[in-house]
Amino acid sequence: MKVTLNRSTFIQELQTVQRAISSKTTMPILTGVKIELSNNGLTLTGSNAEISIESFLSVTNEKAQMMIERTGAVVLQSRFFGEIIRRLPEDNFTMEVIENNQVNITSGKANFTVNGLDADSYPHLPVVDSQNQITIPIHVLNKLIGETVFAVSQHESRPILTGVHFILENQKLLAVATDSHRLSQRVIPLESGTEAFNIVIPGKSLTELSRSVGDEGEDVKISIMDNQVLFETKTMKFYSRLLEGTYPDTNRLIPTSFNTEIEFTVPELLSAIERASLLSHEGRNNIVRLHIASDGVILYGNSPEIGKVEEVLNYEKVSGDPLDISFNPDYMKAALRAFGPTTISVRFISAIRPFTLEPTEGNGEFIQLITPVRTN
Amino acid sequence: MKVTLNRSTFIQELQTVQRAISSKTTMPILTGVKIELSNNGLTLTGSNAEISIESFLSVTNEKAQMMIERTGAVVLQSRFFGEIIRRLPEDNFTMEVIENNQVNITSGKANFTVNGLDADSYPHLPVVDSQNQITIPIHVLNKLIGETVFAVSQHESRPILTGVHFILENQKLLAVATDSHRLSQRVIPLESGTEAFNIVIPGKSLTELSRSVGDEGEDVKISIMDNQVLFETKTMKFYSRLLEGTYPDTNRLIPTSFNTEIEFTVPELLSAIERASLLSHEGRNNIVRLHIASDGVILYGNSPEIGKVEEVLNYEKVSGDPLDISFNPDYMKAALRAFGPTTISVRFISAIRPFTLEPTEGNGEFIQLITPVRTN
Repeated sequence: MKVTLNRSTFIQELQTVQRAISSKTTMPILTGVKIELSNNGLTLTGSNAEISIESFLSVTNEKAQMMIERTGAVVLQSRFFGEIIRRLPEDNFTMEVIENNQVNITSGKANFTVNGLDADSYPHLPVVDSQNQITIPIHVLNKLIGETVFAVSQHESRPILTGVHFILENQKLLAVATDSHRLSQRVIPLESGTEAFNIVIPGKSLTELSRSVGDEGEDVKISIMDNQVLFETKTMKFYSRLLEGTYPDTNRLIPTSFNTEIEFTVPELLSAIERASLLSHEGRNNIVRLHIASDGVILYGNSPEIGKVEEVLNYEKVSGDPLDISFNPDYMKAALRAFGPTTISVRFISAIRPFTLEPTEGNGEFIQLITPVRTN
Repeated sequence: MKVTLNRSTFIQELQTVQRAISSKTTMPILTGVKIELSNNGLTLTGSNAEISIESFLSVTNEKAQMMIERTGAVVLQSRFFGEIIRRLPEDNFTMEVIENNQVNITSGKANFTVNGLDADSYPHLPVVDSQNQITIPIHVLNKLIGETVFAVSQHESRPILTGVHFILENQKLLAVATDSHRLSQRVIPLESGTEAFNIVIPGKSLTELSRSVGDEGEDVKISIMDNQVLFETKTMKFYSRLLEGTYPDTNRLIPTSFNTEIEFTVPELLSAIERASLLSHEGRNNIVRLHIASDGVILYGNSPEIGKVEEVLNYEKVSGDPLDISFNPDYMKAALRAFGPTTISVRFISAIRPFTLEPTEGNGEFIQLITPVRTN
């Protein structure tokens, strides 16, 4: 293998696959990045137990200024390789595999010789079964992830809840996540027909996916395999394992009748919750209290050591029974951030039943649920 | 105490004194910020065992929009107080001490009540003896600190070496720091006459001082007391304790004759050292080797596990004996960064004697010393 190419273009590609590479792995070869040079271009691969990323830099990409002298492959320790490339003095550099998988890296007068590993000993990525495939725009995928992934469980006590549940049926893709204290669910319509599916993708994989695909105008092709899912763009393949097990039936959790309803503008409510949570974080229970009555809507937070806060909240509209309800402000903050700067309707049954949050302008495509905290 | 003022102006002042406040302190009152309101304005104080900072916001400062209703003083837990102020909804806010040192903080509809402590129980700051005083521009002070403080020792085994040694005599201020592996010394001329002094200021204090004074055109007045030094600007007083003990005589360490001399441009040499240190950091010894001979000037770095690097260095001028010398690249990197983008002369006696680095255009005002590593 011998190739000369543009350093900053290569660094971008390397950073993409490095998202999948961990220095803490039981398989030493997975601390490396696999570099494969064909006459079409350069393919990089990074992998860990959860995800694998393959990125392709075409010889026809003008920015890459790629000059291929000899095809081949090698695996290089990812972190060092990246640091070396970043530190090179010139705009372009040359990589050449010499003997025993040693690689010569030159740029200007700097000349590195680094020890590599045999590319044949790198694990193979799953083979794609192209039967079960959907295509959606990248920005739609990113929105779907951003609106649900924050609600997955961070605890391994119920592993299935660390993933987002995706259900495709009747031309609709539903994504839902819950950690059993709060829930977030988004539905999007799909035009392309495909077999129905029902999978759980680890939340961490989705977060990395979102960072890796960027936010361009392209589409992403999603292929479902037995225990893997593949997200594919023009230049990248992103594989994640699926979580095994049965996801709980979340549909029955979402209430349909209410006794109190109030509309807020999200940024204003978020600021007030952030203020109240400054003190509640110090208390043992981390709760804030919302008071809805004819004398006004008031948010309370307190910590015995530090002090207390109360704030009269502005709202758009209120109806139904008066209510005093306590909840974890962190769940509320995460929920509000997922809505973005819009107006939402919050609907309550009672102080001890989960309440829902929905965009006021919505039709049930995006709904969140928060379980209150009983205070007596 | 009751005052209404501009939030962002106040936050700036608070951030200044917060540099001196640590949450890890054996005196609980020192986790707080002392707030004193007089008819002239608002004084904030933060302190720890090493440094104390007092900042003054004048009632005549228009940006502060200060409206004083009742003077007084209180101590508030620094971190929470800061977070609360930052989160308030409006541009202005009101602080009022109510009963039992409780403080009411209001802004818009948000209303905090936080527990404070009696300002009388806050420790008193040292009284300034104005006899021993010099005045220098802030930018000169910052340069002096930046050129020396990085070379102080990070280890407490010889506490005196964790400070920078300042000597004032014959209208010259000399600052020198060494951790016994490298040394950095800067001399500046002083116009104002004062008593000679000889003090050691903790490196950490100087780093905080540099961050606190900013980089404005103002002067800073330096007053030396028994075991304290005070740096004073228009709006801030910064106290640091002095280190006790005798600083070693560093003057005799600086060699005056040389056998090899070479000139480099700093940014180019720094880039090469950074590349070489990528690999040397992984080796057991963390050393790079510099080869100076008629066949060229070459820098070598290597790590048995990762690989090796060699780079032919550009230089401006070279004279004297050929030489092979090994040194810790981290000392060299820190030294080069302190010089900034200039040209330096590096002068060697032999592979086992300390070598000096000086700006080529200099007259001995700024000199650095690095001890090589013996490799055989």
